[in-house]
Amino acid sequence: MKALVYHGPGKKTLDDRPKPEIRDPGDAIVRVTKTTICGTDLHILKGDVPTCTPGRILGHEGVGIVDAVGPAVTAFKPGDHVLISCISSCGKCTYCRRGMYSHCESGGWILGNEIDGTQAEYVRTPHADTSLYPIPAGADEEALVMLSDILPTGFECGVLNGKVAPGSTVAIVGAGPIGLAALLTAQFYSPAEIIMVDLDDNRLEVARMFGATSTVNSADGKAAETIKRRLTGGVGVDTAIEAVGIPATFELCQEIVAPGGTIANVGVHGAKVDLHLETLWAQNIAITTRLVDTVTTPMLLKTVQSKKIEPARLITHRFSFNQMLDAYDTFSRAAATRALKVVISMT
Amino acid sequence: MKALVYHGPGKKTLDDRPKPEIRDPGDAIVRVTKTTICGTDLHILKGDVPTCTPGRILGHEGVGIVDAVGPAVTAFKPGDHVLISCISSCGKCTYCRRGMYSHCESGGWILGNEIDGTQAEYVRTPHADTSLYPIPAGADEEALVMLSDILPTGFECGVLNGKVAPGSTVAIVGAGPIGLAALLTAQFYSPAEIIMVDLDDNRLEVARMFGATSTVNSADGKAAETIKRRLTGGVGVDTAIEAVGIPATFELCQEIVAPGGTIANVGVHGAKVDLHLETLWAQNIAITTRLVDTVTTPMLLKTVQSKKIEPARLITHRFSFNQMLDAYDTFSRAAATRALKVVISMT
Amino acid sequence: MKALVYHGPGKKTLDDRPKPEIRDPGDAIVRVTKTTICGTDLHILKGDVPTCTPGRILGHEGVGIVDAVGPAVTAFKPGDHVLISCISSCGKCTYCRRGMYSHCESGGWILGNEIDGTQAEYVRTPHADTSLYPIPAGADEEALVMLSDILPTGFECGVLNGKVAPGSTVAIVGAGPIGLAALLTAQFYSPAEIIMVDLDDNRLEVARMFGATSTVNSADGKAAETIKRRLTGGVGVDTAIEAVGIPATFELCQEIVAPGGTIANVGVHGAKVDLHLETLWAQNIAITTRLVDTVTTPMLLKTVQSKKIEPARLITHRFSFNQMLDAYDTFSRAAATRALKVVISMT
Amino acid sequence: MKALVYHGPGKKTLDDRPKPEIRDPGDAIVRVTKTTICGTDLHILKGDVPTCTPGRILGHEGVGIVDAVGPAVTAFKPGDHVLISCISSCGKCTYCRRGMYSHCESGGWILGNEIDGTQAEYVRTPHADTSLYPIPAGADEEALVMLSDILPTGFECGVLNGKVAPGSTVAIVGAGPIGLAALLTAQFYSPAEIIMVDLDDNRLEVARMFGATSTVNSADGKAAETIKRRLTGGVGVDTAIEAVGIPATFELCQEIVAPGGTIANVGVHGAKVDLHLETLWAQNIAITTRLVDTVTTPMLLKTVQSKKIEPARLITHRFSFNQMLDAYDTFSRAAATRALKVVISMT
Repeated sequence: MKALVYHGPGKKTLDDRPKPEIRDPGDAIVRVTKTTICGTDLHILKGDVPTCTPGRILGHEGVGIVDAVGPAVTAFKPGDHVLISCISSCGKCTYCRRGMYSHCESGGWILGNEIDGTQAEYVRTPHADTSLYPIPAGADEEALVMLSDILPTGFECGVLNGKVAPGSTVAIVGAGPIGLAALLTAQFYSPAEIIMVDLDDNRLEVARMFGATSTVNSADGKAAETIKRRLTGGVGVDTAIEAVGIPATFELCQEIVAPGGTIANVGVHGAKVDLHLETLWAQNIAITTRLVDTVTTPMLLKTVQSKKIEPARLITHRFSFNQMLDAYDTFSRAAATRALKVVISMT
Repeated sequence: MKALVYHGPGKKTLDDRPKPEIRDPGDAIVRVTKTTICGTDLHILKGDVPTCTPGRILGHEGVGIVDAVGPAVTAFKPGDHVLISCISSCGKCTYCRRGMYSHCESGGWILGNEIDGTQAEYVRTPHADTSLYPIPAGADEEALVMLSDILPTGFECGVLNGKVAPGSTVAIVGAGPIGLAALLTAQFYSPAEIIMVDLDDNRLEVARMFGATSTVNSADGKAAETIKRRLTGGVGVDTAIEAVGIPATFELCQEIVAPGGTIANVGVHGAKVDLHLETLWAQNIAITTRLVDTVTTPMLLKTVQSKKIEPARLITHRFSFNQMLDAYDTFSRAAATRALKVVISMT
Repeated sequence: MKALVYHGPGKKTLDDRPKPEIRDPGDAIVRVTKTTICGTDLHILKGDVPTCTPGRILGHEGVGIVDAVGPAVTAFKPGDHVLISCISSCGKCTYCRRGMYSHCESGGWILGNEIDGTQAEYVRTPHADTSLYPIPAGADEEALVMLSDILPTGFECGVLNGKVAPGSTVAIVGAGPIGLAALLTAQFYSPAEIIMVDLDDNRLEVARMFGATSTVNSADGKAAETIKRRLTGGVGVDTAIEAVGIPATFELCQEIVAPGGTIANVGVHGAKVDLHLETLWAQNIAITTRLVDTVTTPMLLKTVQSKKIEPARLITHRFSFNQMLDAYDTFSRAAATRALKVVISMT
Repeated sequence: MKALVYHGPGKKTLDDRPKPEIRDPGDAIVRVTKTTICGTDLHILKGDVPTCTPGRILGHEGVGIVDAVGPAVTAFKPGDHVLISCISSCGKCTYCRRGMYSHCESGGWILGNEIDGTQAEYVRTPHADTSLYPIPAGADEEALVMLSDILPTGFECGVLNGKVAPGSTVAIVGAGPIGLAALLTAQFYSPAEIIMVDLDDNRLEVARMFGATSTVNSADGKAAETIKRRLTGGVGVDTAIEAVGIPATFELCQEIVAPGGTIANVGVHGAKVDLHLETLWAQNIAITTRLVDTVTTPMLLKTVQSKKIEPARLITHRFSFNQMLDAYDTFSRAAATRALKVVISMT
């Protein structure tokens, strides 16, 4: 089969690889029909993710059709259309029983990282019963690719951890795909204000179309002042969602959070940041971090089916699997191409 | 009347001052019978608290007898025995209505800071109906001095914010009075393990008597390893309570918190700290800060009255008001004097 | 001044009464500009509310302009435009400090019940600082009359108590004004399905326009079967909101609630009901009751100001104060007149 | 092997039965070392549990040693000492993923009910990975028999659902084994008062030894008055735990619950009860029901290991398996024998 393979920093090729086989009783083999590329894939290609070694098939998102299942799989059978979660969860370990699938003792984020992933014609998915989700009849399967990772990430790490509530004030720092996923899912809770912050006016324009009530281009260095003084009357925001992953944006979140508020970190950070406890110690705030657990995937499926959210809005480009390298190129030059999420169809 | 007055960094004297008078309809004048000294009073005396200006009567803790009340006070009358909260709360503003009394728009921590405090024969207490608490008949009033600040601080900022739970694992970094207050109140929730960390073996010995299941002297620089490897089997603690207020102890909390755990900051910090988001971003943790709200004071009074906790155990020294300067001396040299809390009786 | 006065069961007249005066330091006198009629007013007129004695001016909803304030009032001054809450809250007692304003020891639902109410040119409002809310500049004051009672009631007793959540399934039994208020505010949380049940097709038609995803006319006695079998695939609903107040509708809620679900009672009941613990004991459900606390009024004001909800949609008829008896007539014959809420303007 | 077999209402014998075998890949066969008898077993013997048909081996509690495991079992191997949960949980279905193991689509309470149980030398346990718990080295295995059902039932259905909290007031109606299990586990949260109600003075005496702060014999028909007037100053209790399962005790709970309080039903009811919504509608209460989920079993194991609770205190009688009928006799005449829990040792 064809697969997009990581060959060390900066190197990826579309290779021929053997079709995967069942190894453990709980495995399924899924014929991937659609996949996508994540910012994390670009991190891997920079060499920033040491758990991902050369030779690995990338990709942790996608939908497909079950091709084969191991003897312990009871929830799925060949022919079932499934959503592949970016997180593999055994359902049995202490962490899974607590709903912290991200820290599953034999799972977590392993697809396209510690084991071969979804940017291939077939993928082996461990713990299939608790890591795949049935696609409802009639669903827009392409749109559901957004539920493998990006929507639960924005929702769980940003919106739920950030305690977004009716009438509250939210700032989302970073209007990339993850920030926009937080923006879409924050609206489940009807906050009064959602302020979107980015350096790219195009993305801010998208954010306005997606429901942001205000946008702030932080290029002028005055974002904190604008948000705190002009947009929130000196109070600050109830929820600040960090969706970039660098010290400057985390700093901004600290400057704009109101007393009693929450900073929900979503960004993947490569370096430590300053935490201003000299002022924040008395501000009654919470800071949260989270690797997505995908524990809300069933809930999100219901919101999609009932049209409370339209994940397809995040899809800007479509490619065939033969164009996989073009897809990477388009996604990696997002500022120029205005790409949000690119969908690659295998067939 | 006599009062302990701050005269600028390093300077305090026992002065004669006029007895305070009712200014606002919600005020009470309380004849203080017992007060104590807080670590924050020592901070003021170092000049670290700019809101407290020379000439200020110090003190934000104590019990007493109501001497006079303003016309809007309905819950108290002269002769009532009362506990004075370190936090003044109007009961009306947005923050008070949310239970965040610490950020009351016309209150918060003002006693012995922005207005004259309790280290005096009389004190004016604003918002008396919602900032004083009736002392139940037969109560040990001396013990209740611990409920003005230290017990709600340890409980709200450490134990509640830290989500201490039955069977959980807790580390408290800092075995001073506040850390010990967290230790005592953590036991309301029956955690399986409470690990106490300090540099002072005497305080660790006290911690063992107060219910710590393990103690770690961090002088050898191996506290993180000891707690993570030896005491928690490689997992770390569910709750890490920071009760010191310096970068090193906050760093330790980051090293020992388990995935899914909470770092509850109690310490008053004078400088920023490093936050290791490069590892913690994926650890599903929460970090909380809080200036005590004293919203749990009624609950704590019930736990004292029902003997679930004995606050008097925190009192190591007793003085008359004439010995106030000796009391400060004893409290400020705690390592040598083994002082935890000192109680000063006015009569 | 003119006032609508209750003179015993079945009797009400528009009388001349003296303008009210400040009695307690926390009182305000409000010149009422707009008021409305509540189902509870009809209950009083049937003689069902023994706390309301003949001679009482009715009404517990309205907006107006502050005319005078007592010496302890700090948040309002004459000329301020205010929303009058149906619940008076002292802000000081144990219940108020816990957010249970409905059980305020010197307040609760007293307006138009134990003391004279808002269906008059002026009303005395006790505990003004914590029972009135400032109307933001530019607000649609008529629409805000819906925030005195009906919207917080539907939201707190139905939606919050019922734990409505994104993707969840909700049934609201009763499509009168309160049920419709629950319908409007349930949408703050983006449930997947909101099933509205009533006997009146007109009201069900309104419910569809207000966002119900399904409607069920329960006249055929098959509502339980329809909801459980056809609409929820045999599972039942996550949240059943009882918004009528009779045994049959509470029975229906028990029949349709899913395992793990919640029955949120909003209706005012005059008789006991059967509780089927012989089946429900093992169904992991919760049943909640609540007299509205109006603790969410500030939040609701923000949702109105940010246009997350349009309360004016509940207003079907408008009257001048001279037409007060006509307003009662129209409201009390709602099935015929299709009245939801009627607004009476004083000027 | 020997097994205690139900042969229809009133009939049970100690029979010879074939040793069970693995049927499904997730099964384990456990050699039972100790078991006990539950009040539910007596219900079955009265013919009150239609899901349990003649020929069934009874028992849903016990500890033992793994004898064999199916190919999908990864957490256990022969020789492991295990605690058998009364609830079988697949870990995969919607209910299990929500922590509602009691409603597992292929499990729940099936042991000794729909499939053969633990009152036998061997038992087949489905979903072994998620329905057995490893016994820590050095644990008192006999005491852990109390963790199969009674302690999680008292804790989850009574204490957690009842929101027992530090300083709160609790009444437990019914001082049988389940009520006493609620009493023991309520103390994890340090309530100020635990009032125990029963008709049997012996059990009330036991309750006092187990930590009840007051006891009330309800034989005089004045329990409600005693609790509400004398013991709680007219307010009522924050938490009323119903641990009997008849209308009279549920009625008592309604009479004594305070505004804002919770009635947590634990009892297995055979008939509907009256719910007094005509008064409770305005009392802001919650009523909860629950079939135990055993989701807290890992937490409870930690509290036992750390000696926060001593489950062995519930064991009053011990028998060998040959004396199984005597054990039933003793347990079923608890008023005369003063039996709480009886433990039967297989070896």
